[in-house]
Parts: sequence; structure tokens; C-alpha cells
Amino acid sequence: MSSARRVRFSVATSLDGYIAGPNGETDWIAMDPDIDFGALLSSFDAVLLGRRTYEVTRQAGGSGLPGVKTYVFSRTLRQEDCPGVVVSDAPAETVAELRAARGKDIWLFGGASLFGSLLELGLVDSVELAVIPVLLGGGQPLLPHPSKHGRLRLVKHQAYPKTGTVALEYVPVVQPSSLR
Amino acid sequence: MSSARRVRFSVATSLDGYIAGPNGETDWIAMDPDIDFGALLSSFDAVLLGRRTYEVTRQAGGSGLPGVKTYVFSRTLRQEDCPGVVVSDAPAETVAELRAARGKDIWLFGGASLFGSLLELGLVDSVELAVIPVLLGGGQPLLPHPSKHGRLRLVKHQAYPKTGTVALEYVPVVQPSSLR
Repeated sequence: MSSARRVRFSVATSLDGYIAGPNGETDWIAMDPDIDFGALLSSFDAVLLGRRTYEVTRQAGGSGLPGVKTYVFSRTLRQEDCPGVVVSDAPAETVAELRAARGKDIWLFGGASLFGSLLELGLVDSVELAVIPVLLGGGQPLLPHPSKHGRLRLVKHQAYPKTGTVALEYVPVVQPSSLR
Repeated sequence: MSSARRVRFSVATSLDGYIAGPNGETDWIAMDPDIDFGALLSSFDAVLLGRRTYEVTRQAGGSGLPGVKTYVFSRTLRQEDCPGVVVSDAPAETVAELRAARGKDIWLFGGASLFGSLLELGLVDSVELAVIPVLLGGGQPLLPHPSKHGRLRLVKHQAYPKTGTVALEYVPVVQPSSLR
């Protein structure tokens, strides 16, 4: 494990692989009292959002986290319309620069298409899922369709008995042929 | 835990919730040498298949397992065209009868729509997933779209370090209002 700054995709998911319900619902996400969300949040000082996820959090009144710089990736949003965040239309360049700079870890919050793009570019260092014990039968998938196969290496797993949440942590495996 | 015969949905799944790739691929399923498949198989004496899954296994030359009786659920297949298996067009009745009879456990092999139907009917006793460390980005989902929400209770989890497979075992939670 290097001490470099890491881009970590950290989300809650249903057992059948959805990060939100068909209408964006997240009310199925049980917050386990034994998961230290404060410690998790304090490990980040930057958060990455796709355009749609940004618009959802903005509508919900989300105002960002103290001490955390928010980057939104979009080809259509204009910087002057988005106070308090940095708008970029070049995820590869922006994320590569952030990873090379000094700082805490970088929270890749989502959504699926930003995760998919950064994964294909080899810019995701960690995939951390809190698997909630629920089957949704539909919703927003973890990854957009279609995506390239992505092999992962399991590095950590922990069950939280109060809610039955299972935390799984993986490192993406870089394919010899870069993609496959 | 009662000693009754249980209907167990036991499958391998990708981390993003697919039990097969977009063209039915299963080549991403790593067989961990530390998982005792013999013991798993010997805990069953009946297997339940939906019509599509049956046709795939038949095309692949599958001839069933010794000592295991195969039940195929279909409204269109005729018994005389399906030697060696029992065809039923009444999954609720057939599965309820099987659960009430004496015997080993019953393997609900799939696919998704049979799993979804039996889950809604309260006829699934155990959901056992071998989570393979791979993201497929598309394929055959665990559950058909749309399905009712289904809460589960985590009863077991184990990681297999050689392949990074995580085995998760859940019991469906019967909702007070029967569904939702």
C-alpha cells in the first residue's frame, strides 16, 4: 500500500447491485451504528461527482462538506452557475492532477457513469461497498451498461451484525492489455 | 433454525449483481479451491429451474445430477418433451408440496424470474451468494425488473482469500403486510 492519495469509490449498494432505487430512493440504506462515518468522512478532503449526481444532491439541498472540496464533471454545466464547486469537463486530467497533489483521499461519490469512466481510465484506487441486506429488483446500477469487465482484488471484508451490512473493499486489477 | 427442508437460492454473482453476462457468460466465475462444492451439492436432493434456465442447461448438455430430482417450471413445455425432469406449471403448489415432504434441501438454481416469483410467495428460505470479485457492467440480474423490495437478514459471511470470493448467506424477512 503506497502512501499516495487514493481515489476511493465508496457507496452503499443493495445486494443486487443498485446504489439507488428506480426513482433515486435511498431510504433502504440502513445506517449501521457501528460504522464510524465520521472517521470515513475525515479521511477525505475532496469529493468527485458526475453531473446528474451533483444535480440530485443540489436539489436535495446538499451544500457540500466542511473542509472538503467538491469537483463536478460535466460538459454542459458552467462554472458561474455552480457556486462552491469546481466544474471540470476533463475528468482524466483533473483526477490525475488531484491524485498527484498532496492531500487526503478523494471520495468518488458517483454516479455510475463517472465511476465507469474513471475505472476504465485506471484512475480508481479502491472500490468500497457497504452491502445492505435488501433486494431492490431495479434502480440505478453500480456501473453503467455496458461496461468493460473489471477484475478486482478483495482486500477487506467486515460484517456489521446490527444491520447485516457487509463492508467489502477491493482494489481494481489493472489488466496487462490495459483493458479487456 | 428449524430442521425442515429448505428452498435455497444458491448462485454465484458478480459484485454488481449479475448471475451471468449479457450473452449468458459464466467464464468470470472463479471456482475457489477452498469452497467445498461436493458438500454443497450433497446437501440437496432436488433442484428447481425456470424454463429459460432449463433450456440453457439442456443446450449445454446438462443431464442433471445423480440422486437429484429436477423440477422445471413452465406454462409451455410439455412433460413428454422433457425426459428426466418433472415439468410443472404451478410453482407455488409444487414448491409448497416439496417443502412439506421429507428430504434434503431444495436448490433453487434460477433464473431470476423463478427466484422473484418464489421470493414474493414466501417460498425461499435462504439466499446464498458467492460474490465473485468482478464488475460485469451488464448481464442477467439476480432479480427481474421490477420486483418488490425484499428485506433480508444476514446469517453468515465468509471470505475465500485465494480467489477473493465472499460467501454471503441471508434469510428473507417476511413482511407483516406479506409483501413490500
